[in-house]
Amino acid sequence: MQNFYEKTGFLDIKLQNLANNYKIFQEFVEKGTNVAGIVKANAYGLGLKPIVQTLETLNCPIFFVATPEEAVALRSINTQTPIAVLNGLFLGAEQDYIHHNLTPILNTPEEINRWNKTAQNNGRKLPAIIHFDTGMNRLGLGHEETSTFCEARHHYNGLDIQMVMSHFSCADNQDNPMNHDQFLAFDKIANFFPNIRKSLANSSGIFRDKAYHYDMVRPGNALYGGNPTPEKANPMHPVIELTTRILQIRHVKKNQSIGYNSTHAFDKDTSTATLAVGYADGFHRAGSNQTMVYYNGKACPVLGRVSMDLITIGIGHLDKQPQIGEAIEIIGPHQSIDDLASTWNTIGYEVLTSLGSRYHRRYI
Amino acid sequence: MQNFYEKTGFLDIKLQNLANNYKIFQEFVEKGTNVAGIVKANAYGLGLKPIVQTLETLNCPIFFVATPEEAVALRSINTQTPIAVLNGLFLGAEQDYIHHNLTPILNTPEEINRWNKTAQNNGRKLPAIIHFDTGMNRLGLGHEETSTFCEARHHYNGLDIQMVMSHFSCADNQDNPMNHDQFLAFDKIANFFPNIRKSLANSSGIFRDKAYHYDMVRPGNALYGGNPTPEKANPMHPVIELTTRILQIRHVKKNQSIGYNSTHAFDKDTSTATLAVGYADGFHRAGSNQTMVYYNGKACPVLGRVSMDLITIGIGHLDKQPQIGEAIEIIGPHQSIDDLASTWNTIGYEVLTSLGSRYHRRYI
Repeated sequence: MQNFYEKTGFLDIKLQNLANNYKIFQEFVEKGTNVAGIVKANAYGLGLKPIVQTLETLNCPIFFVATPEEAVALRSINTQTPIAVLNGLFLGAEQDYIHHNLTPILNTPEEINRWNKTAQNNGRKLPAIIHFDTGMNRLGLGHEETSTFCEARHHYNGLDIQMVMSHFSCADNQDNPMNHDQFLAFDKIANFFPNIRKSLANSSGIFRDKAYHYDMVRPGNALYGGNPTPEKANPMHPVIELTTRILQIRHVKKNQSIGYNSTHAFDKDTSTATLAVGYADGFHRAGSNQTMVYYNGKACPVLGRVSMDLITIGIGHLDKQPQIGEAIEIIGPHQSIDDLASTWNTIGYEVLTSLGSRYHRRYI
Repeated sequence: MQNFYEKTGFLDIKLQNLANNYKIFQEFVEKGTNVAGIVKANAYGLGLKPIVQTLETLNCPIFFVATPEEAVALRSINTQTPIAVLNGLFLGAEQDYIHHNLTPILNTPEEINRWNKTAQNNGRKLPAIIHFDTGMNRLGLGHEETSTFCEARHHYNGLDIQMVMSHFSCADNQDNPMNHDQFLAFDKIANFFPNIRKSLANSSGIFRDKAYHYDMVRPGNALYGGNPTPEKANPMHPVIELTTRILQIRHVKKNQSIGYNSTHAFDKDTSTATLAVGYADGFHRAGSNQTMVYYNGKACPVLGRVSMDLITIGIGHLDKQPQIGEAIEIIGPHQSIDDLASTWNTIGYEVLTSLGSRYHRRYI
């Protein structure tokens, strides 16, 4: 079952462009500033192993994942590089963190105490990153918890604090004053940790101010080709292309409708093509009557509802009529991840993490 | 890594309720009418193997999948039961269909000709289902193609036509006249095939009119607990429950904001909880500031943007404050799949097929 035609769609992942994106960050930051590899959520849906192996060749010094399970999967690929777990120290999983040499990002006083106690019980210091919340209100020590910890930091002698960090909430908006406010808040905290590494900037934050770089930057979305600076042209290289093929061509009559619940009716006799991709492949149903796809660079609208395994598009306006089996671009030179996302009223990140398992992934 | 706390969330799949749903259809149809098992898209995201094995115990006579790859995966689980491939006869894959004993649903004249020729070249009849379009305009023979085929049907002597079928486009709307129109159109076609089995009804269609049942009904969504009759109470048993746990509790101040782009601001000092589930788990970003989740049966609103791996919810209004590690219901007794879907402006089917791989699946 290796035949081209048996696949719902083709997801081409250009590892060289991923590497080039990583190098953009390596060259952009000062010497001594590290560029982390953010590979949570199966490397943003693109496949953990090939992405990690690509970043390894560029001496990526640390990987970030969301959960301990992701960390263990990564440890089976890479035995040496530090792995940081963003969602913290999962209760009851302490020995697994030690066994697999994982660095929890401690988000709460309870996690700090528990890891410190685990260290004491194990008779050795354990690696930790402390996460301070500076405005996101999602994870990390809150304002008062931060003050308390900063004062008492020397009491936690079980912790080998490898880094202190925070996270921007609005860095994709260059004009949002919260960016600078979060920087000032973090900088104040950072003063308590003079000899410890610091990290603040995500993909967008990296481009906002070099002062935000500190000792480590943490690009995620931009590494995978998303635009970290939505106000201007994307400085990153595109990493994925997604194409599918035409299953069927239909000739439809004026006043006929198409798809579930007949949400599109034809105002003249025309033709449509049915494509082998649907919302079970992560082509969101929100794209019904919204999204464009591309045939030889010409836009073709999705007509009617997106189905589970199929979409239908209008092709009557094309000079050259496509044939069954021909390729249709969903993500590629004519439509970026971010372009597609906007037609689904979401962001490129969700396009990436929605990419379905039926696509045939080709690593190039 | 088997610990409770290491999982992003728990997806409980109640196979007994799935079986009970299947039995509802078996008991509802006349003797002699078959109930197909629709297991495309990894059995609507719930896991092909356990779902198929459950339906096998109830003597499910045929399985439907979308693509030949899904069919081959299914054939490795079940070697005997007929498997029909909804998306048709993929070009270049003809020998794979023969090798794995798959029945293509022929959607176009080209597919009919190609399968007929394949049969002739193989010196034996090959099984086929013919799909007639009666208003969906997605897949299947169009109006003129249907007339041509019905007249010439005896010429295709390579085809062992096992069934003729069509598909409703609006059956979830009981008042839509298209349901009856499609039935009439199909019935007219059916007259050309007096000794061949016929199938028309999907989950909703089954409940609209017993005349729609013919020789085989094809429930999909309803089998998995979705409501086939949205105008009234759901007659099906719920098949899944989805819970996650609280990672962190936060005390937030009046005028602070939460999450990416600060889309929610607090009008008083209150508290929030951060949960280990995000859009990478299929909790759609469309649920930002929209969806409710449940703590001990009490509704808690998602506040701010859904992140890739996390959501934050309001808990300040609860009498009993939850603790870190406690369970939160996303789908369960207080929120059905369809309820959740409506907060994302979609349908339960997309909730199912979006269910992420980080959930720990427990088959009960």
